[in-house]
Amino acid sequence: MEKLEKALKQIKGLNEKAMEELKERVDNLVKPIGSLGKLEDIIVQLAGITGNMHPKVDNKSVIVMAADHGVCEEGVAAAPQEVTYLQTINIASGVTGVCAMSNLTNADVVVVDIGVKEDIDNEKVINKKIAYGSDNIARGPAMTREQAIKALEAGIEMAENEVRKGKNIIATGEMGIGNTTPSSAILSVVTGLDPTEVTGIGANLPMELVENKVNIIKRAIAINKPDKNDPVDLLSKIGGYDICGMAGTIIGAAACSVPVVVDGFISTISAIIATMFEPKIKNYLIPSHISNEKASKIASEYIGLKPMLDLNMRLGEGSGAALGFYIVEAATKMNDVMITFEESGIAAV
Amino acid sequence: MEKLEKALKQIKGLNEKAMEELKERVDNLVKPIGSLGKLEDIIVQLAGITGNMHPKVDNKSVIVMAADHGVCEEGVAAAPQEVTYLQTINIASGVTGVCAMSNLTNADVVVVDIGVKEDIDNEKVINKKIAYGSDNIARGPAMTREQAIKALEAGIEMAENEVRKGKNIIATGEMGIGNTTPSSAILSVVTGLDPTEVTGIGANLPMELVENKVNIIKRAIAINKPDKNDPVDLLSKIGGYDICGMAGTIIGAAACSVPVVVDGFISTISAIIATMFEPKIKNYLIPSHISNEKASKIASEYIGLKPMLDLNMRLGEGSGAALGFYIVEAATKMNDVMITFEESGIAAV
Repeated sequence: MEKLEKALKQIKGLNEKAMEELKERVDNLVKPIGSLGKLEDIIVQLAGITGNMHPKVDNKSVIVMAADHGVCEEGVAAAPQEVTYLQTINIASGVTGVCAMSNLTNADVVVVDIGVKEDIDNEKVINKKIAYGSDNIARGPAMTREQAIKALEAGIEMAENEVRKGKNIIATGEMGIGNTTPSSAILSVVTGLDPTEVTGIGANLPMELVENKVNIIKRAIAINKPDKNDPVDLLSKIGGYDICGMAGTIIGAAACSVPVVVDGFISTISAIIATMFEPKIKNYLIPSHISNEKASKIASEYIGLKPMLDLNMRLGEGSGAALGFYIVEAATKMNDVMITFEESGIAAV
Repeated sequence: MEKLEKALKQIKGLNEKAMEELKERVDNLVKPIGSLGKLEDIIVQLAGITGNMHPKVDNKSVIVMAADHGVCEEGVAAAPQEVTYLQTINIASGVTGVCAMSNLTNADVVVVDIGVKEDIDNEKVINKKIAYGSDNIARGPAMTREQAIKALEAGIEMAENEVRKGKNIIATGEMGIGNTTPSSAILSVVTGLDPTEVTGIGANLPMELVENKVNIIKRAIAINKPDKNDPVDLLSKIGGYDICGMAGTIIGAAACSVPVVVDGFISTISAIIATMFEPKIKNYLIPSHISNEKASKIASEYIGLKPMLDLNMRLGEGSGAALGFYIVEAATKMNDVMITFEESGIAAV
């Protein structure tokens, strides 16, 4: 609890003076005012986060939180549960979607076992296991409050470690068969929307099984009665270790004044949870892609993030966030490569 | 005319066998089927274009066509016309938006004077000048048919040159104060939509002057009576040299079996023109971003391209296309870095 409270206290507001100064420079670059759209917004946000007139995002990590979900025994996922374990190893081996996208943007992939059902004997997988998977939320809470806090703190620690290594931008990722179920459950509770409206096919669940998934989510909410205003209650009752770990990563990055790129659906749910602890965290978030998962759009709108990549992706792992790194880097290139009208001898248009 | 006809004859259909084979591999990569969305479509398209199972797009050029527009004398643009000349030099100096985005994606920027009003004495600007700007389309044709064909062929030649230098992907860009006016005029004629519906603010034209721009476009169409089914007629009567050059670039790239990334509004108009010469060209096009210019969406929908980046950008120069290179390269990374389920020992999901 101490680590969590300390991190939350560390989170600062944006440096408004730096933002104003950089906005002025951006408005004077050799282009029509506003014509680089969100790249302009992003660089101003980075100035606010870092206080720097030439912020850099050239040292990147995707932190992938891997965990199992007890609710898988209710038939909510198409893939067998052991895929969590196998794919975690594949991520560590550098051969999955998030690895391909990270290879593109020259990002490190840090994979963390925060709650996988099996023991993982692989030196590239960081062991932060809180439990051997969460419990089945359709029958009771996913975990205890203490476990949720421990998982949050493991996420904070992972972010802090990366920043200590020199990383200046972090992205959230996850690997956990079944994790769209707790994500949809949390979204349903916080928005008040019926589970039917926020439940999708996840990783190719056949349409005829989605109704069962919806019913399981309804049951999980009815049995656990989570308090929609208490993030620890939401996480412990209807969450999962991967979601806790990602929320912790976000809190940790914000505490270190480092921007966090948020991935698709599950990652956005973690961002919603993180901002419940401290609303200032929203200033540190940068969206990436809109997942093809049904409720991704609802989650993004709820938290007020507008994804920039529309690629029909719904892989997870942080693959969309790793791809999103390059848009943030594009904003820094705009700021570093372009000159101002004054420098070029053209009157501003 | 000979070069144009030869290029058009060279354009092949896609290699369907290669596409099927690569689709099968993509469906077997360690991810839920279809979960990398458009990245999967793009890599299959690249296989169709190149016939290669591991197509590469690691050698990139943005070809920027710079030209002036006589219609500027009607007050259709916010910036003074000399900005075309000044910004062309800035592009050659590497300090503008397209340069920043190309720096990010490690692309070359090739800037071509295809019709700038002034002589340009700069060794980095390639001289393919057809005329000192187009004529005012509100008072008569922009150029002769012969000039339009010469400009198309200059574009073809530029694409061929880049491919000869080893480039395996090309993007189109432009610099031409006033060029949203001929672009909107062409879009109005080919779609049958009223100029009011397809005319926007371009590079920050004050809203109160947009009505004048619409009237100028109406007059240009009424005076010139372009044939909506004849691309050379459209280009010569209500086009511009930059639009001709970009259409030529697209034709040339397709003739060389090289994919072309299309930028926002003006570039998409050029793509519409190019596909009027040869519908198979559409197979070679990859969209990038949706421009914030009002008619960009209409143009993209008309040709059937769905942009993947939504960044409120409307700078032009090929900046959006240069940024789009990254997504195409992401597709090749997916194909080159990821392994199949068979290779990983997981049953496909």
